[in-house]
Amino acid sequence: MSSPDTATLLIHCPDRPGLVHDVTGFIFAHRGNIIDLQQHIDPTLDAFFMRLEWSLENFTLEKDEIASRLQPLARRHDMQLRLHFASQKKRVALFVTKENHCLYDLLARHEAGDLPVEIPLIVANHDTLRPAAERFGIPFYHFPITKDNKQEQEAAQIELLKKERVDTVVLARYMQIISPAMIAAFPNQILNIHHSFLPAFVGAKPYHQAHARGVKIIGATSHYVTADLDEGPIVHQDVMRVSHEDSVQDLVRLGRDLEKTVLAKALWWHVRDQVLVYQNKTVVFE
Amino acid sequence: MSSPDTATLLIHCPDRPGLVHDVTGFIFAHRGNIIDLQQHIDPTLDAFFMRLEWSLENFTLEKDEIASRLQPLARRHDMQLRLHFASQKKRVALFVTKENHCLYDLLARHEAGDLPVEIPLIVANHDTLRPAAERFGIPFYHFPITKDNKQEQEAAQIELLKKERVDTVVLARYMQIISPAMIAAFPNQILNIHHSFLPAFVGAKPYHQAHARGVKIIGATSHYVTADLDEGPIVHQDVMRVSHEDSVQDLVRLGRDLEKTVLAKALWWHVRDQVLVYQNKTVVFE
Amino acid sequence: MSSPDTATLLIHCPDRPGLVHDVTGFIFAHRGNIIDLQQHIDPTLDAFFMRLEWSLENFTLEKDEIASRLQPLARRHDMQLRLHFASQKKRVALFVTKENHCLYDLLARHEAGDLPVEIPLIVANHDTLRPAAERFGIPFYHFPITKDNKQEQEAAQIELLKKERVDTVVLARYMQIISPAMIAAFPNQILNIHHSFLPAFVGAKPYHQAHARGVKIIGATSHYVTADLDEGPIVHQDVMRVSHEDSVQDLVRLGRDLEKTVLAKALWWHVRDQVLVYQNKTVVFE
Amino acid sequence: MSSPDTATLLIHCPDRPGLVHDVTGFIFAHRGNIIDLQQHIDPTLDAFFMRLEWSLENFTLEKDEIASRLQPLARRHDMQLRLHFASQKKRVALFVTKENHCLYDLLARHEAGDLPVEIPLIVANHDTLRPAAERFGIPFYHFPITKDNKQEQEAAQIELLKKERVDTVVLARYMQIISPAMIAAFPNQILNIHHSFLPAFVGAKPYHQAHARGVKIIGATSHYVTADLDEGPIVHQDVMRVSHEDSVQDLVRLGRDLEKTVLAKALWWHVRDQVLVYQNKTVVFE
Repeated sequence: MSSPDTATLLIHCPDRPGLVHDVTGFIFAHRGNIIDLQQHIDPTLDAFFMRLEWSLENFTLEKDEIASRLQPLARRHDMQLRLHFASQKKRVALFVTKENHCLYDLLARHEAGDLPVEIPLIVANHDTLRPAAERFGIPFYHFPITKDNKQEQEAAQIELLKKERVDTVVLARYMQIISPAMIAAFPNQILNIHHSFLPAFVGAKPYHQAHARGVKIIGATSHYVTADLDEGPIVHQDVMRVSHEDSVQDLVRLGRDLEKTVLAKALWWHVRDQVLVYQNKTVVFE
Repeated sequence: MSSPDTATLLIHCPDRPGLVHDVTGFIFAHRGNIIDLQQHIDPTLDAFFMRLEWSLENFTLEKDEIASRLQPLARRHDMQLRLHFASQKKRVALFVTKENHCLYDLLARHEAGDLPVEIPLIVANHDTLRPAAERFGIPFYHFPITKDNKQEQEAAQIELLKKERVDTVVLARYMQIISPAMIAAFPNQILNIHHSFLPAFVGAKPYHQAHARGVKIIGATSHYVTADLDEGPIVHQDVMRVSHEDSVQDLVRLGRDLEKTVLAKALWWHVRDQVLVYQNKTVVFE
Repeated sequence: MSSPDTATLLIHCPDRPGLVHDVTGFIFAHRGNIIDLQQHIDPTLDAFFMRLEWSLENFTLEKDEIASRLQPLARRHDMQLRLHFASQKKRVALFVTKENHCLYDLLARHEAGDLPVEIPLIVANHDTLRPAAERFGIPFYHFPITKDNKQEQEAAQIELLKKERVDTVVLARYMQIISPAMIAAFPNQILNIHHSFLPAFVGAKPYHQAHARGVKIIGATSHYVTADLDEGPIVHQDVMRVSHEDSVQDLVRLGRDLEKTVLAKALWWHVRDQVLVYQNKTVVFE
Repeated sequence: MSSPDTATLLIHCPDRPGLVHDVTGFIFAHRGNIIDLQQHIDPTLDAFFMRLEWSLENFTLEKDEIASRLQPLARRHDMQLRLHFASQKKRVALFVTKENHCLYDLLARHEAGDLPVEIPLIVANHDTLRPAAERFGIPFYHFPITKDNKQEQEAAQIELLKKERVDTVVLARYMQIISPAMIAAFPNQILNIHHSFLPAFVGAKPYHQAHARGVKIIGATSHYVTADLDEGPIVHQDVMRVSHEDSVQDLVRLGRDLEKTVLAKALWWHVRDQVLVYQNKTVVFE
């Protein structure tokens, strides 16, 4: 990137007077120029959330000393901090099974320069999409999974992800339940796309459930994966109108457009550090 | 109405070749001019649905003989038929509690000529909205309901509705569960508005449930009332985007816009005989 | 209102480092507690925009001295400031012609407590909606307008509005072009609802234009009125899907739902001081 | 396809009584089973439109005799007819320039079996997307276009399309104005995607125009290409909410999601023979 690097700070702490003044004082004292500042106060929890992005062009601190210099501020206000730099692109692993729509959509965005990440690898429990991966020149790892080998295959996956320094896992229509070990290794960093408007139609075959109930709208939900199936913090949702004319197969086909755009949008927010998780919900600083 | 009357026929029968030809033949034989024809085939059920509206301007049958003359056709194809005339406006009772938004919305549409019904009465379990009813000159009946008197009050309501020749009941934010006796008296003719995207958030306080789950979209659902709470056939749904900024109170306030437009649209389709119920779903001929 | 009063500050100035820090320093120094802070930077214009709302509960300045005490800050940064207090409700005049939907919608919201304004009067160029105004107990002023009397009638309207200390004019389907004198008297305080997705279909009969063009979506736009017809800063827009089935009359009927919700939403933002105008555009701090 | 073939008939004629009866009589007489029937009457034009799809499983006419056997019916009612068979997939040429999103989207749908067409070739005025074409194994033809060679290059394109028996041209973000010769060779068979909500922002750089006007919603429009730039019959449109936060570059990026889904949906309807053009509008039988 030829444009100067930026730093992003995500803050979560108890609400009290003077927080914004104190944090912006730190930036100002070191000649940072704020590009974006968003804050949110949850009055029922007395909780304060902030996202602050500033230019490092004239900043007087080195990147690797910012975190430690923020410590007094953090201690003073009992803050949980996350610090990111735009130049350090997230390394994203795509997990797929057989359906290609989310995979192609993300790869096309990446190729067009619309998704600021690195994609070092694709993981799959079937070999179906290997040609798709190869077309885009991305290493493809096939982990066939059965009841018997599931635990050891997931252990091998985690090892591979660690080796490749992956920090975000995207389940791009990956038809396997993620084990607690994987979830623990990537807390709030595994993004799933569920093909319903959660919490409606949790679990398997949501389009079949939707058709059976006779809903007039279908949806898709992208959420972080937690130990409770389809119960993790929701990042993004969108919906589409359907009618009695639409068969289950129509819902499946139509829903793919929702799935790919909802997942891509959630991932966009995630990789730009616009998402903060608390109490199984998200604050999305749009 | 100065424009000539029209007849509408709603048909539900097993699918077989020649149905459209046979029905349109009946209309053509008596010089009816078709204004609208929509059909739907459910291939999984081998079921055929049709809505046919034709002008009575040059029709050679009298209105009161059409039903009987349709009998041979109906028997031949094992049809369930419903016949309506545009000139016979439905008589709609509005049931309310304390919130005014759906009530005012429907009364304003009615006054503007956008809702082709008669509204002979408003029923309420609180006296709060009496002034609203009086402003529009519509009789207001207050039925205070307690655990002890619920059964007899509902019996009195049914008697009143029958006396007033009501054929459609609209629960315009009526905060009482409808008893089986009322449901049996008005099968698929009691239209409710539920303040969530069903089947998500069934039951009480759906906005509180939605806020607790951290959804990014809220909805409203209009459905016919059946014995299973919030499980009746869905007529219409719509949604609205929300964010972490929105408190429960915001959701309640924002949701009112959804509730009133969704209910009004469902009622529009209902009173124009565009809705056919089967197997706890609806076919809506838009 | 039993809850403590809040102050809202809207700021527009050239962008430079330290702005947020300086402004929040002022609030903090006088023990204000920030409830909401939103800022926006337009990098192409090097312009800075901010909305700041804080509780006056423990604030150490009196309300009537805040503005003057802000002057040094304003001069230092070349700021344009607007200061409002939640307790000082805007006084809104509703202008109508014959159609009732926007009028009833706003009056119902007001009665339900969902619109924090005072509505001291309704102005109309026809007498049609007098009964609607009377039902809600709001004074109704009829100003019949012809080519010959237009100038003097508008002068009388302005005088009336000034006498009633009106600060916001809402054209709730008022079918008259507003003269420059009125616009000058209420700059960026006259809110109109135009029944199209501007800039498509400027001027008269937009639904007819939309039908003739065969669009698949119709819209409504709420904007501030300026000297250029339908060219003022857009506050809010929304759309609705239509089809070849819809006649011009259908578009007119369907569009009313858009018009009333779009106008109500724009007014909500306006009266809560969430809208900042610059260069014929708006910053809406949602 | 293992499922039996179907025939689709698109009819456009003056409205008169008995049309549906007469057409369905033809199908019934030859043992066709109707799968879908939709009709539309435009009362202002006294025009009748119908789409009829029936199974050929037991149909007693050969495919190649259906058209001629329909002639008496067509003459009797002054009908314009179009007859298609599901088994005869349309041959679609994709025209592109440099942007990949619509191209990849269509190719991924095709590979997934969600787009029932053949794609014999891709035409481009730049060489940029050749690798994308090659990945999917589709012949790529590069026609560099300058002011001087435009006419002869288009003549060569038309010749190529004819040779490849192309019947539909999709301008998948093809940044060239199509000449009258090409339009005449493919009447109502060239589908374009324009990156605005037409008729707003006709012509070049619509996102820049939208940003300058300060709209709160952006759109995309798919239409058939006619001699009047961006004035052809609209097949599909969709929109997306934006805000003051969004720069022109954001609109460009966000808009791509609209462009690809709107174009794909319009193409879906087109290739399934669900679109009828009349008077510069479309009837879309959904």
